[in-house]
Amino acid sequence: MARTTAEQVRTALATAFADCWCGDAGGIDAVARYAITAPGKLLRPRLLCHTALALGGRMATAVPAAVGLEAAHVGSLVHDDIIDHDTVRRRRPAVHKAFGVETAIIAGNALYFSWFAALDECGRNGATDRQIAAATRVQARTGAAVCRGAAAELSMAGSFRHDISAYVTMAQGKTGALMACACHIGAIMADASSELAGAARRYGESLGLAFQIRDDLLPYTAPRSMGKPRDSDLRNRRPTLPVLLGMKMADAAQRQTLEEILTDPEHGGRTQLRDLLEASGALDAADAMAAEHLVCARDELRHFPGGPHRDELHRLATV
Amino acid sequence: MARTTAEQVRTALATAFADCWCGDAGGIDAVARYAITAPGKLLRPRLLCHTALALGGRMATAVPAAVGLEAAHVGSLVHDDIIDHDTVRRRRPAVHKAFGVETAIIAGNALYFSWFAALDECGRNGATDRQIAAATRVQARTGAAVCRGAAAELSMAGSFRHDISAYVTMAQGKTGALMACACHIGAIMADASSELAGAARRYGESLGLAFQIRDDLLPYTAPRSMGKPRDSDLRNRRPTLPVLLGMKMADAAQRQTLEEILTDPEHGGRTQLRDLLEASGALDAADAMAAEHLVCARDELRHFPGGPHRDELHRLATV
Repeated sequence: MARTTAEQVRTALATAFADCWCGDAGGIDAVARYAITAPGKLLRPRLLCHTALALGGRMATAVPAAVGLEAAHVGSLVHDDIIDHDTVRRRRPAVHKAFGVETAIIAGNALYFSWFAALDECGRNGATDRQIAAATRVQARTGAAVCRGAAAELSMAGSFRHDISAYVTMAQGKTGALMACACHIGAIMADASSELAGAARRYGESLGLAFQIRDDLLPYTAPRSMGKPRDSDLRNRRPTLPVLLGMKMADAAQRQTLEEILTDPEHGGRTQLRDLLEASGALDAADAMAAEHLVCARDELRHFPGGPHRDELHRLATV
Repeated sequence: MARTTAEQVRTALATAFADCWCGDAGGIDAVARYAITAPGKLLRPRLLCHTALALGGRMATAVPAAVGLEAAHVGSLVHDDIIDHDTVRRRRPAVHKAFGVETAIIAGNALYFSWFAALDECGRNGATDRQIAAATRVQARTGAAVCRGAAAELSMAGSFRHDISAYVTMAQGKTGALMACACHIGAIMADASSELAGAARRYGESLGLAFQIRDDLLPYTAPRSMGKPRDSDLRNRRPTLPVLLGMKMADAAQRQTLEEILTDPEHGGRTQLRDLLEASGALDAADAMAAEHLVCARDELRHFPGGPHRDELHRLATV
């Protein structure tokens, strides 16, 4: 039997997403479908499937859990866009712009609930009650961590003198938790040992931190938006890693200019901000931190059995 | 061994609620605690516990599930208050007034996730993986139904000529689903047969419809607010049952006056509205529908084993 490759995982996921929320998708289901069928990278579902397959699991139980996880991710984005007043997501109007804030709150909830409903489909495809109970526990804890991360991000907004450790804690909730969950659920669906499940979790969490830092760097490194407004963090006065590092690494005069630009984002000074962060070494330092987390992620794969799915996980932590 | 009475259930729940969200309740946990510890009637948790105990279950597995269910209910209220622009809940500022809309969205989510996290505590107290998997399925479906009900309510707003069946479908999601879930989860924790679980569900759903209709009637029957603004439905142009019945039962002239008052709630005319609904027979008809649902609810209890908990469920469907 030919092994399922990265391409096959992508195809299986694409088919599953085309089918989901499709039945009589009227009312709130149509709104959820609008949100979830906008083409994203499907990173989290791919992580879940490759982890499951790397550890001996099957597509039949991994794919529904992966679709559910993406629904949760999209649900969090729908609510984040309300909170951040972001109006564009994946090159389309954000849900709250297209359907109103009230409907967007409900649609985010519907997406979150479908995360748990997906476990029922895993069960119909052969997952045991033990696996479903374990997945429920992990998903519920992950949801709580995502909420804590979102609340921490809100409460940190407006100040740019937080410790890097506070940033890391916030990012672990905001991005690390769902990625760790992806890999953990993959391990659960593969009935992996708790040691391997722990390694899978840590791989996902480190990868998530690296991705969050790269995301923070995008306004300074990518020339154009990839579907979401690049000025969202600045506009919402979010203390991103480059900014926090810049405030620590800059000299007194630079720090004052930085703070002036950050406190009044409407004032302009984007180019000056970029130049200051570059000159202070903050952009390089943030990039180095991301690379370090990728090393940690790859290192966790050392106990995984060799094969194309382990290779794919390795590759995802290399780019 | 003395049987656990209604009073003992109340006491056990009060203790459990005093303990919950209590650890290092900072950040979003403190907000969730603010929302969940406002004294409510705890109807849903009581339904869950009495159903479990009536069908042979134990407090140890019922109470955590009951606390989780109340968290879900409160989470839905936190989001509803944002959607309805209601500023007071249980005699205190609504969460979005006390902490801001952004934090209220996150806190509602945190409360919803704790609904699923609670099943983990049921497991530690002896619930089997099979029970937890079944409860996860029921809770996820209930969450979806609550979302559909909230979305239906939103989309029905502003028109007062809906069919009664559309109202019933909406109310089944808005109120029936969580009450049906309460009783269903109670039955699951008691390892009840699917026949008894079905009867428990239907009892909860009928009771929920009756309560929703009574709630709709409160602005016309209760002289003062019980903690939530009495004019919320009118202000949000919600087609409540008395209004829908009034529009069907009134003569042409009354109907026109009704529609004028309903379309411009700021215009006043509350007393006139009440008089018109009374004169058309709509208030009596709505009250009769509520009573009918209570009869259906009590009827579902006929196959339950006799005892104080069945008696308490009967009593709750009698008031």
